[in-house]
Amino acid sequence: MYTVYGDMLSGNCYKIKLLMQLLGIGHKWVHVDIMAGETRTEAFLAMNPTGKVPVLAIDGGGYLAESNAILNYLAEGSAFLPAAGMARAKVLEWQFFEQYNHEPYIAVARFIRKFLGLPEERRAEYESRQEGGHKALAIMERRLAKAPFLVGDTATIADISLYAYTHVAEEGGFSLAPYPGIQEWLARIERLPAYVAMARENA
Amino acid sequence: MYTVYGDMLSGNCYKIKLLMQLLGIGHKWVHVDIMAGETRTEAFLAMNPTGKVPVLAIDGGGYLAESNAILNYLAEGSAFLPAAGMARAKVLEWQFFEQYNHEPYIAVARFIRKFLGLPEERRAEYESRQEGGHKALAIMERRLAKAPFLVGDTATIADISLYAYTHVAEEGGFSLAPYPGIQEWLARIERLPAYVAMARENA
Repeated sequence: MYTVYGDMLSGNCYKIKLLMQLLGIGHKWVHVDIMAGETRTEAFLAMNPTGKVPVLAIDGGGYLAESNAILNYLAEGSAFLPAAGMARAKVLEWQFFEQYNHEPYIAVARFIRKFLGLPEERRAEYESRQEGGHKALAIMERRLAKAPFLVGDTATIADISLYAYTHVAEEGGFSLAPYPGIQEWLARIERLPAYVAMARENA
Repeated sequence: MYTVYGDMLSGNCYKIKLLMQLLGIGHKWVHVDIMAGETRTEAFLAMNPTGKVPVLAIDGGGYLAESNAILNYLAEGSAFLPAAGMARAKVLEWQFFEQYNHEPYIAVARFIRKFLGLPEERRAEYESRQEGGHKALAIMERRLAKAPFLVGDTATIADISLYAYTHVAEEGGFSLAPYPGIQEWLARIERLPAYVAMARENA
C-alpha cells in the first residue's frame, strides 16, 4: 500500500497522481502544506532530507523522493516504461532534461506568478526564467512536431513528466501559441483512458 | 561501438569516462571545445538540442544525451545498477538529486571559479551557490556517515554521479573538512579496480 505526501497544485506531485490514476494504483494522499512549513519539520526531513514533495511511502518499504524516480518505480513492468535499451534510456534523457532545463524555468516562473502573485521583488527573477523556458519548449516542439509522444509511438512516463508543468506553462507567463506540436500532444495525453486533470485546489 | 563527445574537465563527461573504465567498455572520445562554441554548431545541436556535453553516439543506434541517462544505459546488467525494485529507484533518486540540488550549486561555482577565474561580475552568483552546495553535501554526509555507498553496500552509478563534482568541490570553494563520511567515501571509490582519475587537462 502506498501513501503519497504531496500538494495537488504542484506539478511534481501531480505527475504521481496522474500515473497512479492511469495505472489504477490505489494509494492514500496526504496533503503537505508547503507554505505553512510542513516540508521543513523534522518528521518530513526524515522522509526526504531535501524538504521537497512528493514523497512516496511504501508500507514496510521505506520512502522514495524525487518525482521522476517515483514514476520509474511505479511504472516498472507497465506500458509507460520500456523494458530496456535505448527507448528506456530516452525516457530518462527527457526526465533529466525536465529537471534541469524545463522545471527550473517554467515551474519557478509559475510559482512566482501564480502562488506569490508576482511581487515586485521577484519580478527580475521571473523575467530571467522566460528565455530558458521558451528554449525548453522549443526543444520539445522539435520532437512533437513530428512524433506523437516524446519516446516511441505511445505514452511513457517521459510524457507524464513533461506534461505536468507544460500544460500549465501559461500560468508562468509562457504562451503555447508558438508550439502547435506541443498543443496537439497535450490533447493526446488528455485523451488517455483514465486521465485525471490537475486539481484546481487542495481538497 | 561507442563514441563519446565530451570535455575531460567536465564532471558530467567524466562520469561517463569513469564508468566505461570501470566496466571495460571500449570507446572513442571526441573532444568538444565548449568555450570555442563547438556545442552551439548545427551539427552538435542535431545530436543534442540542449547544446550540452556529454553525448553518447551509438554506431547505427542514434545519440543519447544527459550524463545520468547515459550511465543508466551503459550500466544495465552490471553490478553498478540494481536490476529492479527500491534499490534501482534509490539510484535514480540520488541522480535526480545530483542534477537538481548538487550540480547547479557545486558545478556552477566550480565553473565560475576554475574556468572563468572568478571575475568580479560573477562573484555574487558564485557566492549565491555556496549555501545550496553545502546543503547538498550535508545531505550526502547524512547517508555516508553510516553507509559505505549511497545505495546498498557496493558502488552503483549513483556514486559515480555524485563523485564527479564532489571530489573537485574544493575547486568551487567548498571545503570537505566538515564531511568525514564524504571523504572516506571518495577514498573508497578511488580504490575501485580500474578506477581512473579525472584528467587535469584535455589531451
